[in-house]
Order: sequence, then structure tokens, then C-alpha cells
Amino acid sequence: MLRQSPLAAADRRENDAEHSWHLALMVMTLAEYADEPIDVGHTMKLVVVHDLVEIYAGDTPLYDTAAGESQPEREEAAADRLFGILPGSSGRELRALWDEFEARRTPEARFAKAMDRLQPLLLNWMAKGGTWRTPGVTADDVRARKAVIGEASAPLWDAAKHLIDEGERRGWARSR
Amino acid sequence: MLRQSPLAAADRRENDAEHSWHLALMVMTLAEYADEPIDVGHTMKLVVVHDLVEIYAGDTPLYDTAAGESQPEREEAAADRLFGILPGSSGRELRALWDEFEARRTPEARFAKAMDRLQPLLLNWMAKGGTWRTPGVTADDVRARKAVIGEASAPLWDAAKHLIDEGERRGWARSR
Repeated sequence: MLRQSPLAAADRRENDAEHSWHLALMVMTLAEYADEPIDVGHTMKLVVVHDLVEIYAGDTPLYDTAAGESQPEREEAAADRLFGILPGSSGRELRALWDEFEARRTPEARFAKAMDRLQPLLLNWMAKGGTWRTPGVTADDVRARKAVIGEASAPLWDAAKHLIDEGERRGWARSR
Repeated sequence: MLRQSPLAAADRRENDAEHSWHLALMVMTLAEYADEPIDVGHTMKLVVVHDLVEIYAGDTPLYDTAAGESQPEREEAAADRLFGILPGSSGRELRALWDEFEARRTPEARFAKAMDRLQPLLLNWMAKGGTWRTPGVTADDVRARKAVIGEASAPLWDAAKHLIDEGERRGWARSR
């Protein structure tokens, strides 16, 4: 499924496979910045499966409020359909990982979600705005949607805020 | 880096990020077929980093003998350059993972390599030939290059051989 974020060095948007691989590599290299200890291998499983439901549910743009409202229902139905294809134990394992990622009740799920929000921010930074330039979106909207990074890592949230602040200063994200 | 295999449902070739994500998902779902017990999280780390050296060394087609001869030297130099960019412990960890993958001396590395050879075989099957149709390549050449799957999983190698046999019968790989 084609995502919204532009790629850093290409004239096309990234897809879910590229995005998920990028998150897996970020988990490996950034795990040391997690506020709580995390199981790196388990966190990698969470990010590898987290967007599979988009096969049926499609990509939901982060700054599309209307699409966001129907997102849980659409993705739940997609999960039932998709993970039901696999034989019993495999299907149950992938479904449990997706549920864990969505619920964000474990340190691994919180860190996985933080990577999922940090990676597009880095791509938008490299693209000098990217989806920050979505009509109607302000730098404060970006901060609000990215604050979840702070639930997993204080230093990475500090770094993310710095990029958003600097992006606003450069006019890549609107002040209001 | 753009790889040789065609994608199953697209008119373009896959790239390393897509390939590596696909391997990570295959490790999760096919680990039960490993002949020796493997640490799934560690095996996922191996596949996530295994093609990073192609950033500098480029993709080496599996059936290009001349390029294959220079591959170890080119990839070794790329590894020195690439993993040297990262701070000490991160760089050393990724380098150790890449060395482990290449050496195939652990059950995890053997299974990671098996996935690396099985995934393009599945894409070629879906594409009714794909790189099996490379000039000069026969079904026996394909069997020889894929036999490494059998070092990690007897049932997956049986399945792979079945696809190659059937591909040869259908004329997707030449008999001689």
C-alpha cells in the first residue's frame, strides 16, 4: 500500500514494505534510547506486521481527520480477514502482535509506535516539508500527532521536537 | 538498490527494502520449518541488515558469474565504509550481524540465507520465470544456486525443488 510520505532520495512516495523495513532497522539502532528496557527482536516483529492490515484497509493519512475516524473499524475488519487466511497458530501470532502494537500497553509496542511516527518525520524533514504541507495542517498539529514518541523515548521526542521547531522556522510547516 | 527479481503484482523490479521486509516476515512465519531451533528475533536482525552493503556494492545478479567473482571483495569494502559511519557499538553490532550472515556458521544465518534464496524463487514462480529466463541459465543452474535452502530446512528445500521442477515442465526454466 502506498503511503503518504515522500522518499528522501526519490521522486515517488514510499510503500509499506519500505516503511516497515526502515522501522525494523531503526528499532535495532535506536533501541538504546528507549526509556524502558525493550526486547529488540519482539519490537521488530511488531513493526514488521504493523501495516499488513493496509492490504485491505488502505493507508490512512495521519492528517486526514475524517479518514481517521473510520480507521479503527476498517482496520479491525481487515485484520479479521487477513490474519484469518493463515493456519491457526501463525494467524493467531500475527493477530496478537498487531493487537499489541495498536493497544500500546507494552514498552515494545510504545517504542514500535514511536518509530512509526518518527520515521515519516525524518522523511518530511529530508523533503523540506512533505506531508507537513498538507492544507490546513500547522506545526502544532504535527507536534500533537507526534507527541506519542514521548511515551517511549524522552531523548528521541526532544530530537523530533527540535526538527519540527526548525521546520516551522524555515516555513516547511505553517505556524497557523 | 534495485534487485533483479520482478514483483508478483507490479510492473517493476523489487528493491532491497521491500526484499528485506519480505524476508523478515518469512522468518516469522516459516521459522517452524527450520531443521535446527533458531532465535527468530536474531534471524530477523540478520535479514534486515543483510543487503545494506548494496548501498555501495550494488546488486549482484545471482546468475551473473563474472560479477559473482568480484562480489566478496566489493561487499567487504562496502561493509568497511558503511558500518564505519555509525558510532562504535552500533557499527560493530551491524558489522557482526553482516559477517554472521555471510559466514553461515550459525543456524540463524543458515535460515536467513535460505529465506534470501527462497523469496526470489517465489517471485520468479509468480512471474512465470522471471530471472530463470536469464540467457544461458538452465533449471539445473537454478537448482545449484538454490540448494543452500537445504542447509537450513529440508521441507522448504523440498517445496522449492517442486516449484523448480514444475517451472521446468512448464518451460519457465530451460532444461538445457
